[in-house]
Amino acid sequence: MKISAYTFDTRGPGDVSGLRALFDSGAERAEDLVAVIGKCEGNGGRNDFTRELAMHALEHLVGPRIGVPPERVQDRVIFSFSGGTEGVVTPHQIAFFRSGAPDRVRRPVKRLAVGIGHTRAFRPEEIGRMAQIEETARTIRQVVAELGVEDPADVHLVQMKGAIPAFTAQEADNAARAGAPLRCDMVWSRAASALGTALALGEVPSERLSDEAVCRDWDLYSGVASCSAKPGLERTEIVVFAMSPYWEGDLAIAHGVLADILDADGVRAVLRRAGLDPADTAAIRARLVAAFAKSEADPRGTVRGRRHTMLQDDDIGDTRYSRCVLAAVIASVLGDTRVYVSTRAEHHGPIGGGPLALVVREASE
Amino acid sequence: MKISAYTFDTRGPGDVSGLRALFDSGAERAEDLVAVIGKCEGNGGRNDFTRELAMHALEHLVGPRIGVPPERVQDRVIFSFSGGTEGVVTPHQIAFFRSGAPDRVRRPVKRLAVGIGHTRAFRPEEIGRMAQIEETARTIRQVVAELGVEDPADVHLVQMKGAIPAFTAQEADNAARAGAPLRCDMVWSRAASALGTALALGEVPSERLSDEAVCRDWDLYSGVASCSAKPGLERTEIVVFAMSPYWEGDLAIAHGVLADILDADGVRAVLRRAGLDPADTAAIRARLVAAFAKSEADPRGTVRGRRHTMLQDDDIGDTRYSRCVLAAVIASVLGDTRVYVSTRAEHHGPIGGGPLALVVREASE
Amino acid sequence: MKISAYTFDTRGPGDVSGLRALFDSGAERAEDLVAVIGKCEGNGGRNDFTRELAMHALEHLVGPRIGVPPERVQDRVIFSFSGGTEGVVTPHQIAFFRSGAPDRVRRPVKRLAVGIGHTRAFRPEEIGRMAQIEETARTIRQVVAELGVEDPADVHLVQMKGAIPAFTAQEADNAARAGAPLRCDMVWSRAASALGTALALGEVPSERLSDEAVCRDWDLYSGVASCSAKPGLERTEIVVFAMSPYWEGDLAIAHGVLADILDADGVRAVLRRAGLDPADTAAIRARLVAAFAKSEADPRGTVRGRRHTMLQDDDIGDTRYSRCVLAAVIASVLGDTRVYVSTRAEHHGPIGGGPLALVVREASE
Amino acid sequence: MKISAYTFDTRGPGDVSGLRALFDSGAERAEDLVAVIGKCEGNGGRNDFTRELAMHALEHLVGPRIGVPPERVQDRVIFSFSGGTEGVVTPHQIAFFRSGAPDRVRRPVKRLAVGIGHTRAFRPEEIGRMAQIEETARTIRQVVAELGVEDPADVHLVQMKGAIPAFTAQEADNAARAGAPLRCDMVWSRAASALGTALALGEVPSERLSDEAVCRDWDLYSGVASCSAKPGLERTEIVVFAMSPYWEGDLAIAHGVLADILDADGVRAVLRRAGLDPADTAAIRARLVAAFAKSEADPRGTVRGRRHTMLQDDDIGDTRYSRCVLAAVIASVLGDTRVYVSTRAEHHGPIGGGPLALVVREASE
Repeated sequence: MKISAYTFDTRGPGDVSGLRALFDSGAERAEDLVAVIGKCEGNGGRNDFTRELAMHALEHLVGPRIGVPPERVQDRVIFSFSGGTEGVVTPHQIAFFRSGAPDRVRRPVKRLAVGIGHTRAFRPEEIGRMAQIEETARTIRQVVAELGVEDPADVHLVQMKGAIPAFTAQEADNAARAGAPLRCDMVWSRAASALGTALALGEVPSERLSDEAVCRDWDLYSGVASCSAKPGLERTEIVVFAMSPYWEGDLAIAHGVLADILDADGVRAVLRRAGLDPADTAAIRARLVAAFAKSEADPRGTVRGRRHTMLQDDDIGDTRYSRCVLAAVIASVLGDTRVYVSTRAEHHGPIGGGPLALVVREASE
Repeated sequence: MKISAYTFDTRGPGDVSGLRALFDSGAERAEDLVAVIGKCEGNGGRNDFTRELAMHALEHLVGPRIGVPPERVQDRVIFSFSGGTEGVVTPHQIAFFRSGAPDRVRRPVKRLAVGIGHTRAFRPEEIGRMAQIEETARTIRQVVAELGVEDPADVHLVQMKGAIPAFTAQEADNAARAGAPLRCDMVWSRAASALGTALALGEVPSERLSDEAVCRDWDLYSGVASCSAKPGLERTEIVVFAMSPYWEGDLAIAHGVLADILDADGVRAVLRRAGLDPADTAAIRARLVAAFAKSEADPRGTVRGRRHTMLQDDDIGDTRYSRCVLAAVIASVLGDTRVYVSTRAEHHGPIGGGPLALVVREASE
Repeated sequence: MKISAYTFDTRGPGDVSGLRALFDSGAERAEDLVAVIGKCEGNGGRNDFTRELAMHALEHLVGPRIGVPPERVQDRVIFSFSGGTEGVVTPHQIAFFRSGAPDRVRRPVKRLAVGIGHTRAFRPEEIGRMAQIEETARTIRQVVAELGVEDPADVHLVQMKGAIPAFTAQEADNAARAGAPLRCDMVWSRAASALGTALALGEVPSERLSDEAVCRDWDLYSGVASCSAKPGLERTEIVVFAMSPYWEGDLAIAHGVLADILDADGVRAVLRRAGLDPADTAAIRARLVAAFAKSEADPRGTVRGRRHTMLQDDDIGDTRYSRCVLAAVIASVLGDTRVYVSTRAEHHGPIGGGPLALVVREASE
Repeated sequence: MKISAYTFDTRGPGDVSGLRALFDSGAERAEDLVAVIGKCEGNGGRNDFTRELAMHALEHLVGPRIGVPPERVQDRVIFSFSGGTEGVVTPHQIAFFRSGAPDRVRRPVKRLAVGIGHTRAFRPEEIGRMAQIEETARTIRQVVAELGVEDPADVHLVQMKGAIPAFTAQEADNAARAGAPLRCDMVWSRAASALGTALALGEVPSERLSDEAVCRDWDLYSGVASCSAKPGLERTEIVVFAMSPYWEGDLAIAHGVLADILDADGVRAVLRRAGLDPADTAAIRARLVAAFAKSEADPRGTVRGRRHTMLQDDDIGDTRYSRCVLAAVIASVLGDTRVYVSTRAEHHGPIGGGPLALVVREASE
């Protein structure tokens, strides 16, 4: 099998002209579309409707082409949109296609493999606790195995939409009275999703994980997780990006962990791991397909030892600031403003830092 | 004469505890204070009162110590505050002192020299036109001469608070009817101040300057100007930072022009000019005193060839975004979040870019 | 013919469940839909994509039901959405249907009549000048005539989406050089649309209108205009709401002009004109169908003689404040939070004020 | 004794020209100043420095006139500033002076009496619990007694700055482990202050109060409390406004409880209680001295039965919206934009509603 990827700048959240042209040209088939990941120009918050607009437009583009009603498209294709193109970020979408039939031919060079999975539906009391961590880990391991990945170190990005099942006030009261208050919100779902990733890939030993460790023991983290959580979602949606000798194409992925949101050296290290020379901007420009990162306004209130004000601003939220900062730093190294940074990074990298993954096109001979 | 400088992190705009401790310790005398330049955590806009709070606190700190009423302190000392510590920026103040008597002893090594001046009072119709440009240039040349600067290339920063004299609706109408509508606002005053700097230092030949060239011919610019304009101010306040063989101390300044707000290479170039190795973060940390830059959300709507959304956002202004981005990029290179970025940069560097100046302490033997 | 109207609260900009249920129940036919007017929870500005989402959802709901592609639906039905539900405003939509065949039977009681029209396409240089005013007036008069309206005073609301045709920098330059700089923007298009309404209905004598009067002579205004302008639109879309003896149904409309955004007395006056007692909240609740108003942060900087800060706030725009204030005042009188307030009101009512129209259901016997 | 009051519009948070002129004219003595209450044009949040600027300016105005250092002025005079003049609100200050000697002469007409008090210093674990409630109540009762108030119903406003003593992470951990997690924040301090007021004045029977009832039993509330809480404050500052037969002057106060933020009828009821006819705008304009209210974006998500979006907006906070709405409604009834609304109203009036107090000048004969 083979992965191909296309990056489109968009003129607005509802702009699907790039993908439509791709379909119309016959270059790719809608049936092969695996995932579309993108940045929209919303605020990334509760009243950000740009993601819904992007998905609405994609559903109506793809549905008729694959013969399913628009509202069923997301059963087949993962749409993962992050609001907030603060600063220099160019609103864009990356579409991943999977074509060809699986085979068991082991090739000498590993290539990008992309697989998707869904956890079972969670109950509200499971979110943010071991039940979510373990089921997330189980699902990731299964996807990883299906991709023919030979080493957990070959997994470079686990993009997740974390479950937050609906619950009643009565359920919340019952849970509180039973001594295990619900953790069924965005913070905890992101945290457990990241720890589930770390567990699946051996980044954290299982014996250190517990309900108590979540959102408390910040030394435990994944270097490849990237989770946003979505109220109302019952199952966590998972897209695994890895290197596999059973896949073809000209794409590769590498990753690293940034120590903080100013870590330009960390960005350069990932570039090198991806086979790119940080000084060779022309090559980067030619071969970079996508950059995915998680940002965070350091909750300790400092960056590089000095006070920041991101957490005390009632006009602009810390999520907008941290995305703006990290995207600027990454873009300044890559020379490219098509950077996907999503924010809040509990157990995604060390506190104040976070993972970065780069998808690149292999150099042509 | 000798310049000394101190950088203080502040806990809030009204925090003058650093300077107070300096005075109380006897290390510096209030009489020697030349200028305090700082970043406050406001929005940098019309309803930013953090600058007023900072100045109010400084006036009441300094006034009694130099024997003048608080409201007269700014006749003697330049206070230049910029609102907006978006992202990683640490609110801070840099205080410059000038001590010793002038002499005419030419020393083998040039050191930082700081001088201040004021233009004459402007009439509203002069702002944004040749009258402002020429008077600004005249004043700068005079300050430069007084500092014993031997080469215009030794001037590295001209920090200005640009005049915007008050005017009546009647005056505005008269001017419009006379075919020369008033330009008496922030945009034009910043623009003419920058061109005045360029004229004074020979960055732009006088024959290319005209009323028509202002805010139109963007090829004309200064690489060392840094102007904010202030409604109600009749005279432009000017602080010149230069290298002079007639000054002592352990401070130096260097500058460069950033091509755009992602220009990390440009920041490294200025570091090198200041005698610092961009890879030697410990040395930078030890010796960096201040970083001053101007930012701009590229008015052409793109950065590095791709669309940005800073100019179409009705929730957050482009000035906040561009400060956030450029400060993040500079801080990522310097490893220091005490970065002074002020925004809107008409004729300050090329369109979309702007000047950067670094004040450093010389390496001790 | 007969107008019927339905008001739906929405759970989000893309929520069309109310209208869908109406269609599915057979109560109304999609073919009879004339217009949907609504408030969305965006910021009402350049980066407000909630209006696009609402329209996208409606186009995909209505298109298949009337047998036209989604992108052609707006050729047949007017969708008019205003972003910004600041404060107490409930996001909602009002759908108007027109059924039955026209006849020439004059009935003893006038009822609500709704008609739509489009101006011809405008050239950029016409916007904000007499050409736009006169063509807008011509179109309104034609729609009014078609509705069988007997008296211009029976027109109570002219809802417009004002044209702003695209133009090149070259066209703008040429126009400026020819001494007639383009006015092709939102301010001027709204202004000329309102004056066109005033001209059509005799609110302003034609001899007082001129290119110079636009955005200058604020004594000239319409008390029934409500225009938003949309970049890229070539023709102004017009919906006329009037009382006509040739129409049936149980709906009526009345209007008045509010003196300022605190004019609760003005709201009560319109209620009375609509046949409702301001003290009878149960009747208002039962019979009120829709409230349409235009708001404005008084450009003179004061309300009721005292300073307001809406125009000096760089965190929140004056458009958001003025909508919030006026909607709160109207809702406090009506006892209903489904209030449509759109903002910026050049020549819509006196400076600082604006029109208010109420659609009500006639009392059942 | 006698209370006099002056209302000043301000040109900015640091504008104390009105009070200065009053002192300079000799009309009032700085020694008699009891309290200054005002609205500043900040955001009312954590990064609102306008309150600090206002206090800084007042301290430097008053200090020299009463012979104490600026930083000690607030030991003698209460300064109570609320940020946020959203919408139509005019930034303003009301200064209260107390002159004459206390006597025991009971007069036939009650007049406004103003007294101040401070609770003892609180420990962090007391905040939000019965200890804070009871000490607050004790202090209020004492002030009320000193004022010669004969009936708790004669107390119309208890303006408080609620204590939030500093604490260490260790103390917080200890408290959590001991089963009584700290409540030492703004929400709980406001809540307990309001309940303390209710207890002092008999609005709530003591047997219904408990640690558990705080922020849970919303049926318990005060109709006269108005508390903001301030991190770092050890003692709650209290200003009691009441009617007493032992006081002179021409001022009176009345209050009422608004059912929600649209309750214009409630505003009119308070006007009538204050002896003013809501229809007589000239009299209101002439005699109104100050309006104090508390607002709240109804936490149940609806106003008058319909959805509001104030709690789901990540660009603008609910505190800004609710102040804007309620101030607009009050101003629309009073015809005056000098309205003091502070926000978040736990146990201040019923859920979604809050108290309103009006200070008026008695009609001259």
